[in-house]
Amino acid sequence: MARGNGKLVIIGGAEDKDGPCEILQTFITLAGGTDARLVVLTVAAGDPEDVGSMYRELFYQLGAGRVTVLHLPDRQTANQKSAAVQLGEATGIFFTGGDQLRITSILGGTKIDQVLHRRYDEGAVIAGTSAGAAAMSAIMIVEGASDDAPKKCTTKLSPGMGFWEKVVIDQHFAQRGRTGRLLAAIAQNPHILGVGIDEDTAVVQNGKDRFEVIGTQTVTVLDGRGIQHTNTSISEPDEPLALTYVNMHILPAGYGFDLDKRQPLLPV
Amino acid sequence: MARGNGKLVIIGGAEDKDGPCEILQTFITLAGGTDARLVVLTVAAGDPEDVGSMYRELFYQLGAGRVTVLHLPDRQTANQKSAAVQLGEATGIFFTGGDQLRITSILGGTKIDQVLHRRYDEGAVIAGTSAGAAAMSAIMIVEGASDDAPKKCTTKLSPGMGFWEKVVIDQHFAQRGRTGRLLAAIAQNPHILGVGIDEDTAVVQNGKDRFEVIGTQTVTVLDGRGIQHTNTSISEPDEPLALTYVNMHILPAGYGFDLDKRQPLLPV
Repeated sequence: MARGNGKLVIIGGAEDKDGPCEILQTFITLAGGTDARLVVLTVAAGDPEDVGSMYRELFYQLGAGRVTVLHLPDRQTANQKSAAVQLGEATGIFFTGGDQLRITSILGGTKIDQVLHRRYDEGAVIAGTSAGAAAMSAIMIVEGASDDAPKKCTTKLSPGMGFWEKVVIDQHFAQRGRTGRLLAAIAQNPHILGVGIDEDTAVVQNGKDRFEVIGTQTVTVLDGRGIQHTNTSISEPDEPLALTYVNMHILPAGYGFDLDKRQPLLPV
Repeated sequence: MARGNGKLVIIGGAEDKDGPCEILQTFITLAGGTDARLVVLTVAAGDPEDVGSMYRELFYQLGAGRVTVLHLPDRQTANQKSAAVQLGEATGIFFTGGDQLRITSILGGTKIDQVLHRRYDEGAVIAGTSAGAAAMSAIMIVEGASDDAPKKCTTKLSPGMGFWEKVVIDQHFAQRGRTGRLLAAIAQNPHILGVGIDEDTAVVQNGKDRFEVIGTQTVTVLDGRGIQHTNTSISEPDEPLALTYVNMHILPAGYGFDLDKRQPLLPV
């Protein structure tokens, strides 16, 4: 469930950057279009300069009012007042891909973290792609084997940035065969809803307990509330899990999901 | 549902051949152990000589009574009386991997096809791995994109060998990220149950409407009977499908499934 008054645009990676750029355009529009003040956070990236420049140029091309790139290589920088001030005026904040553990281990508990949550509460749009998507939820997948059966050892979880509660997000979902690792995440506590986002696909969470799908592929929702039997607590770490009666929804663009009722929403 | 009095051992590919060989050993035991008369059918294979020799040696090492390799390169050979006689005495028949369309297009409607079904009705064990597994069902997946969202264009279906009805089988399931293509198969008619078999894993179907899982990974059952909404009939071939309320079961060794009741069976 969303915590603040802001909006989230959570992208499964590899979003279109050459064509109509529907997902990035949606982010800019939600952030105010020509009035948008965007900040690109490159903290996840191994090549922050290149990635930052690429998104700045692209966002300007797509009509954003102002775009700033903020490099936060370490916790010291993430605690500087100047960085916090820059972020404090943003109407849209964009997390690039890279390593989600860089996002949380560098930003968690810093001034920047506080400003991010304040701006989100005040109505800013927060977007993230790939690793930037994974970090959005309160619990995030740090790493896990793709193309594997669900096993406890294959999915490492960590506290995420906490903009979205009661869900665990996975990205590059169909493209990297990640059903198993998302199942392993929800098996540990089916109270958590699994949201697997494909490449060039995003969920838009608009402050209510609902999200809508945009983009060219699908979002897979794995709902474990109805699980009748599992060996999760007794299985060895590398043993495959048993899970019965997991509910699965495949949602392309125009479809949505009610997180409170745990029900898919059809296009209107 | 199984048609004959025989047994099926349907293997998701890459079964253990160096260690305890649990799956291949189970096949041999069901076929009579030291009394087993096995026939290896290499029709699917691109390298039938090598694959045939490998399985013959392995089956002898594992204690099989007699092992014959039958190469059936074309429909003419599959209609020869001598081949039919050889197969007519088998207690266990093993389909190697390769291309499932070679199995059905070469064997379908031939003398060998008749003998296979007769032997199955009489109680023989029929096993297949990888492509040999795919061909077991009445409807089989010929090809389809791995690691992709479900789309009509990604899954090509064909009539299979028909030993197992009302299911569609996929193999190398978790290891190649095939959730999407199996979903695309069952979406077209949720009457069909999707059975996705991981590598080094098999379902053993013992003539009743039940199967049991053996091996080191899992079997994923996708049950679409409860689907409440889908766009399958109206979506474009390359558009992602929408599917709500698919029931998913992840079953490791010792678990089973009742095909009639569509219920998972827990280890006893």
